[in-house]
Amino acid sequence: MTITVEKIEIAGIEKSGSFVDSSIDTAWLGRYIMGRWADVRLESRALSGRPEMQDVPGLSKVDHRERVMGQLKLLVEHGQVHRAFPPAFGGLSDHGGHLAAFEELVVADPSMQIKSGVQWGLFASAIQHLGTVEHHAAWLPDALSLATPGVYAMTETGHGSDVASIGTTATYDAVTQEFVINTPFRGAWKDYLGNAAVHGKAAVVFAQLITAGISHGVHAFYVPLRDEAGEFFAGIGGEDDGLKGGLNGIDNGRLHFDHVRIPRTNLLNRYGNVAEDGTYTSDIKSPGRRFFTMLGTLVQGRVSLDGASVNASKVALQIAVTYGNQRRQFSGPSGEEKVLLDYQRHQRRLIPLIATTYAQTFAHEVLLEKFDAVFSGVDDTDASRQDLETLAAALKPLSTWHALHTLQESREATGGQGFLAENRLTGLRADLDVYVTFEGDNTVLLQLVAKRLLTDLSKKFSSADASTMARLVIDQVAGNAVSASGLRRLGQRVHDRGSTARAVTQVRDADSQRELLTDRVESLVASIGAELRAAKKNGTTEETFNAQQSNLIEAATAHGQLLQWEAFTDGLAGITDAPTLHVMTWLRDLFGLHLIEENLAWYLINGRLSRQRASAITAYVDRLIERLRPHAQDLVDTFGYGPEHLRADIATGVEQDRQDEARAYTEALAASGNAPVPEKH
Amino acid sequence: MTITVEKIEIAGIEKSGSFVDSSIDTAWLGRYIMGRWADVRLESRALSGRPEMQDVPGLSKVDHRERVMGQLKLLVEHGQVHRAFPPAFGGLSDHGGHLAAFEELVVADPSMQIKSGVQWGLFASAIQHLGTVEHHAAWLPDALSLATPGVYAMTETGHGSDVASIGTTATYDAVTQEFVINTPFRGAWKDYLGNAAVHGKAAVVFAQLITAGISHGVHAFYVPLRDEAGEFFAGIGGEDDGLKGGLNGIDNGRLHFDHVRIPRTNLLNRYGNVAEDGTYTSDIKSPGRRFFTMLGTLVQGRVSLDGASVNASKVALQIAVTYGNQRRQFSGPSGEEKVLLDYQRHQRRLIPLIATTYAQTFAHEVLLEKFDAVFSGVDDTDASRQDLETLAAALKPLSTWHALHTLQESREATGGQGFLAENRLTGLRADLDVYVTFEGDNTVLLQLVAKRLLTDLSKKFSSADASTMARLVIDQVAGNAVSASGLRRLGQRVHDRGSTARAVTQVRDADSQRELLTDRVESLVASIGAELRAAKKNGTTEETFNAQQSNLIEAATAHGQLLQWEAFTDGLAGITDAPTLHVMTWLRDLFGLHLIEENLAWYLINGRLSRQRASAITAYVDRLIERLRPHAQDLVDTFGYGPEHLRADIATGVEQDRQDEARAYTEALAASGNAPVPEKH
Repeated sequence: MTITVEKIEIAGIEKSGSFVDSSIDTAWLGRYIMGRWADVRLESRALSGRPEMQDVPGLSKVDHRERVMGQLKLLVEHGQVHRAFPPAFGGLSDHGGHLAAFEELVVADPSMQIKSGVQWGLFASAIQHLGTVEHHAAWLPDALSLATPGVYAMTETGHGSDVASIGTTATYDAVTQEFVINTPFRGAWKDYLGNAAVHGKAAVVFAQLITAGISHGVHAFYVPLRDEAGEFFAGIGGEDDGLKGGLNGIDNGRLHFDHVRIPRTNLLNRYGNVAEDGTYTSDIKSPGRRFFTMLGTLVQGRVSLDGASVNASKVALQIAVTYGNQRRQFSGPSGEEKVLLDYQRHQRRLIPLIATTYAQTFAHEVLLEKFDAVFSGVDDTDASRQDLETLAAALKPLSTWHALHTLQESREATGGQGFLAENRLTGLRADLDVYVTFEGDNTVLLQLVAKRLLTDLSKKFSSADASTMARLVIDQVAGNAVSASGLRRLGQRVHDRGSTARAVTQVRDADSQRELLTDRVESLVASIGAELRAAKKNGTTEETFNAQQSNLIEAATAHGQLLQWEAFTDGLAGITDAPTLHVMTWLRDLFGLHLIEENLAWYLINGRLSRQRASAITAYVDRLIERLRPHAQDLVDTFGYGPEHLRADIATGVEQDRQDEARAYTEALAASGNAPVPEKH
Repeated sequence: MTITVEKIEIAGIEKSGSFVDSSIDTAWLGRYIMGRWADVRLESRALSGRPEMQDVPGLSKVDHRERVMGQLKLLVEHGQVHRAFPPAFGGLSDHGGHLAAFEELVVADPSMQIKSGVQWGLFASAIQHLGTVEHHAAWLPDALSLATPGVYAMTETGHGSDVASIGTTATYDAVTQEFVINTPFRGAWKDYLGNAAVHGKAAVVFAQLITAGISHGVHAFYVPLRDEAGEFFAGIGGEDDGLKGGLNGIDNGRLHFDHVRIPRTNLLNRYGNVAEDGTYTSDIKSPGRRFFTMLGTLVQGRVSLDGASVNASKVALQIAVTYGNQRRQFSGPSGEEKVLLDYQRHQRRLIPLIATTYAQTFAHEVLLEKFDAVFSGVDDTDASRQDLETLAAALKPLSTWHALHTLQESREATGGQGFLAENRLTGLRADLDVYVTFEGDNTVLLQLVAKRLLTDLSKKFSSADASTMARLVIDQVAGNAVSASGLRRLGQRVHDRGSTARAVTQVRDADSQRELLTDRVESLVASIGAELRAAKKNGTTEETFNAQQSNLIEAATAHGQLLQWEAFTDGLAGITDAPTLHVMTWLRDLFGLHLIEENLAWYLINGRLSRQRASAITAYVDRLIERLRPHAQDLVDTFGYGPEHLRADIATGVEQDRQDEARAYTEALAASGNAPVPEKH
């Protein structure tokens, strides 16, 4: 229903102004954005809403770790950990649903979420995906039941993102038919490992497999760590990583191995095996491809961090917008104090973040569907795995950074209240901080994406005819590559001086947004490609690649944002309620145009937008924010978290109560005739 | 000395490339940037380097609070707290030196710094500045000696930035000659007050002074809070603010008053007095001016947070750059792994932050000198106080946000290491988080600056002749205000297509930077002024002011950055050593051009830079970063913090040791002939 109003009240908040208002159907939309695994999500949210699953701010490191360990046992009891595993081990082989449930745990306690991810998403999952049937039978049940708390021992102090270069060795001794696990120097200590400091009884250790004098690269080995009493077995040592910036409910630690011997059969040998005599065999001939295949399971960590981060952004916005609609500060024209969200700056701070959070919600659903298709086997090809990995590598950086940004803006927008632990924002931010550098450092992931974009470009090039290539090259030289023909319309009249309104109509429709966003990705990639081709001829590839590093990251970011925009736009197609669609389209437009606004200099320098149209974009972004302001509360309420999830005093309505009490006091005082008269009167 | 080198080694770090290298004189420069109060700073740094003055990560809230309270006693014992007070009370009336020393405490523990700020910078300082001789005699000695831990009870749950609207009342009862302090509703509880939860024995309470039925606005009252046993006196209540996102060594809490009676003489009556019969008198007739005069002492908090934040940025950069020069990741062209800081992205992340930190260092010194001149009485006029307040309001937001940004970039640039408490970055960031919203919320302060800029503009307008006004108006209409004539040269040939190198030479000199930065401030202010004048005619001032809020903040930010640039440039004039000057000039250029790059869209849209020249700026920023890269270590070592201040494991050289050990192992293995052969060979 679309109505023109002067003043309306939604969810207890008075919204005034002369605008066309469309009330969104929050119940329907809330369910819609939860996507295919909505029921699983709701179940996981119900569990996450229980106090025993939640963090208690201020616990000591030791107590927090024990509490989280207890919560992992509760997850087992509630049947929350088997879903992704095969029916033979009590599971449902439901990969998408497993991650959907996992992502919702972040609202209970990120430490609990991540520690459960270490146990089932990394340790048990490595046994399942890198091991073979004997391994599954031997170790999966205890890994799943938490009888064996496990460590995923991949990262070393000296090597994180570059896993291929780790220093730990596993040298086969054919005489005893054992692997000798060894840490040759301090930099090769395993580090930052969840479960390593206290609880871990066994580990999947990644090491360079050496047999018969040949190094076959990184493989995974099952290594018992501690006895029943919790003492390290002989040859194994370690230390506590100690206090961290967040996630202190996880016992991260370091491990080192002094010629620790394990049976030959402890090699998780799905992708590479060593026979009794020391002969190495693998179905995957290329060591490089074998390595990336073995690391392929890591993608589920990235997928789930993407989803969890979006959820954290939702929590932050639900808190900040609720408070911003109740807290008043400084008098407005009427003499009454204005609510924070009526200030333009406050709107500019929070409303674009709502748009981005919706875009990331839709994009995450696309990613999760793709993940499920690959891991369920419905669409498990080399190509689809590569697409999945590229998509996860593109989205995880954007959503984890967005979550930190959103939590911080929300914290600042709620002032001193936001700094109190009782209002949740600082704790979540501290925990999520590490999401931007673990499970693939964001800048490294974006470079992987950029390399894929370059590969795709070079394929296009190798198949392109001479005239296409010539045109591309000429465009580059002129600094004016226009890869989508429609853009010529937008950019050609650089000096037009029409009205702002007319300029807006020429850029605000969905096709224009898509063209502008697509063009930027393609042009950035084409420009880097041209530099690299020139460098290849000159023998300066390495230097040039380094000189293009920022551009690579820029291109990958733009690509990820375009994918988010496309997912949002596709998501609109499923909305039938006209007012809801109306508001959500404004929100999508805000997301798209805000992205363009953030990169306006690029569009101007490269002749894609005239000065007139560039100004129009900022003006239109302002207008969209103004239109969306009355819907801000509905849009965050749609996220659907209850007080048991938000657990923020300022999001309970307490501020509204305080405002009402203060107003009632002032009014009663005035009515009594005893109110003091201001000196200036 | 300027030399051309292919490869050099500075501070153990090999720096290669073909460039003109100038070694900076770090010892001299380090002393130079410490400014006028260098000796005081060094003394305070020495104290801050002592373990008993420092935080111990992981302490419980209770233990941390007690530790910090003990440290405050040590500050008294070391004679660190009297400096700003008059000789009669054991001080030196050294205002600038006091803040310089205070700012250095942040490297020991921000909780200790801020709690000492509450005690001496707010509580004792309010007695001194708002009270009169009897008050000084009665309360200052115990406030200074910490015999009376004190609370500065200004902020309320419902009113932070808008102090004028607080709800607490102090109603004079002429019968008993007492003031009755009362909290009329929950929103008027005093909140976030350091020392309130546990240690505070007395408070300076800000309340609306009411006498004879007239409200004279906010005044300060000395109110005893707790008895010797720590119990609240009758009528006083409160609660603990509990755990916070940081600064947990401070016992922040809430206070409320139920008709608490204090003697008439407990009004701190320097700027306003109530006689026995209830007659109110003040030397300052305007209630507004009186209010701002009383709040004037708050400026020292803003000045010192500016300085403390710059110091925190220095600590972060010294840690991150040191590690970035030692940690290696991924193989370079030679097969050897590259140090992080040789990656372009890493350079782009950290080196501009070094430039900004230097700019803020120079700007802070200007601010501190101004503060000292005003508070010492050397230059204490209404005009100079207003200038001081505007300068503090412009710089504090920029430096506090910069510190958070720098700490976060440093944390991410050091990966998992950066997330460990032992490497310091996350703890400092958590503590400094609140610096952006307390002692004046950053967005509110920037609006104060903008209002001042508008006032200055309207003064200019009212004195401008008709032709000047006409020109300004025409420029605005054309969207093309060019207020500095030199800019016409930069902007007039929008379509020039010369070489990038030629375009660079036209924008990189200091005059061009100044013109571009100045022009942006003036144009933004002029444009807002024009909107407001039009609105005044249309009677839409309030709405228009709100619609301009983002622009106001933008203008104030640009103004603050220009001041930083000017301070940096003035600072260069004092450098005589040619190589040092050479490098520092590049650094200033990087600061200036990076600012212009960040706002490139504005310069393009408003016709100040052609597309060609805009591109040239980005290219030149890249070149400057490349030139500065070999000096990065020197530039951060110049900050002069020792291991006792940094207290970050990764900044101790431990990573270099690990790299050396790993390399020695690999080389020895290769030499032994036992190294395994890679499978792919």
